[in-house]
Amino acid sequence: MSHSDAQTTIEELKLRLKAFVHERDWEQFHSPKNLSMALSAETAELMEHFLWVDSQASKARAEEAARRQDIEDELADIIIYALEFANMTGIDVTAAIEAKMAANAKKYPVEKAKGRADKYTEL
Amino acid sequence: MSHSDAQTTIEELKLRLKAFVHERDWEQFHSPKNLSMALSAETAELMEHFLWVDSQASKARAEEAARRQDIEDELADIIIYALEFANMTGIDVTAAIEAKMAANAKKYPVEKAKGRADKYTEL
Amino acid sequence: MSHSDAQTTIEELKLRLKAFVHERDWEQFHSPKNLSMALSAETAELMEHFLWVDSQASKARAEEAARRQDIEDELADIIIYALEFANMTGIDVTAAIEAKMAANAKKYPVEKAKGRADKYTEL
Amino acid sequence: MSHSDAQTTIEELKLRLKAFVHERDWEQFHSPKNLSMALSAETAELMEHFLWVDSQASKARAEEAARRQDIEDELADIIIYALEFANMTGIDVTAAIEAKMAANAKKYPVEKAKGRADKYTEL
Repeated sequence: MSHSDAQTTIEELKLRLKAFVHERDWEQFHSPKNLSMALSAETAELMEHFLWVDSQASKARAEEAARRQDIEDELADIIIYALEFANMTGIDVTAAIEAKMAANAKKYPVEKAKGRADKYTEL
Repeated sequence: MSHSDAQTTIEELKLRLKAFVHERDWEQFHSPKNLSMALSAETAELMEHFLWVDSQASKARAEEAARRQDIEDELADIIIYALEFANMTGIDVTAAIEAKMAANAKKYPVEKAKGRADKYTEL
Repeated sequence: MSHSDAQTTIEELKLRLKAFVHERDWEQFHSPKNLSMALSAETAELMEHFLWVDSQASKARAEEAARRQDIEDELADIIIYALEFANMTGIDVTAAIEAKMAANAKKYPVEKAKGRADKYTEL
Repeated sequence: MSHSDAQTTIEELKLRLKAFVHERDWEQFHSPKNLSMALSAETAELMEHFLWVDSQASKARAEEAARRQDIEDELADIIIYALEFANMTGIDVTAAIEAKMAANAKKYPVEKAKGRADKYTEL
């Protein structure tokens, strides 16, 4: 009975989180400051899986059976807090991402950025 | 012509990001290790807006006209990297969030967790 | 037989860490990239102690007997990785701090910055 | 007239920072919560220098003339906030590091840990 990314809108996820938080009367803790800290803490937990391996080797690590569930959980936590931040501050995530991608498309035009990891100021 | 969270599935956002990355031949840089670092770096930029204000005061700060655009951009960056991490590792975000919320619902039952910010081990 | 901050130079700490790392042949893992990730991950662990409490209340939390040892350990980890980063990149920490404090003294002159948490660009 | 790590005790650095903060009446902002956030934000800025390069290549990057000053500044900021955290919470950094290194020496005995980056639970 679980859903998939193909069936689920951002709004649906946001509403489910909102209900979860509201039932527990947690809005009082979910200030932008606190949510940004929680987000940052969760990203560190994801990063810890890949600390001492090379970039290339991190791909296999993300597939290791013993880590996979935890990695999925950490990613879920990150998106949960990001969407809850959007809930509490009234941000439309899709519009924000579209605006950012449009700006990135200008900063990183295909013909200049292709195959390069340099910052746009260095292209 | 921009879209909203109500109209947009997670899958659609993931596919748009995938295309953006592919056009630029950036998959080679997007290892789990590197994406987790980028995610962590972006969350720090969001957090910086709220460093020295109290939790309560951070709500007004998130509304300040001079900061609002940047805050939306930072949140967009975070979700972009999170979805790109999901793309590169084959994680279904919705399923991962549902699994995590089910686990959280057990750890934090309403009757125990209501109005409390304590960790489940302390409830 | 333990030492104190009053007796111990930065150089002594750096040398002890260098020996510890060398005995274990760990220099191969201690690239600037990896050490910066480890540093960031450790700071998140420190931050987690203070996620949902107000700034003011975090003072009492840092004194809680049940947390104190862990907080000291996390701070130690942070400084260990920072000094090891200095070891591996040849940075003199004292000189770097003096240079930074001199720059900060100009950005934040006492008469302007007193009692204010604003960024220097806003003073 | 600048000093070096060989001449400077942790205590001296802590006292200089304490004076700097006190002159500006900044103790009111320097709660454990806020300082842990500032620390985390600074580590992210250091990490950003090494986002898209491999671990090995990050060594050369840390030597690049155009980045070197900024890297030194970021490392200085990290240690400044770590020592200020110690100031505000009354932690003796040297004692904390010695305790942590003693614990690490037990978790990572040379004969088991040599040349391996595995967590002690996997040795």
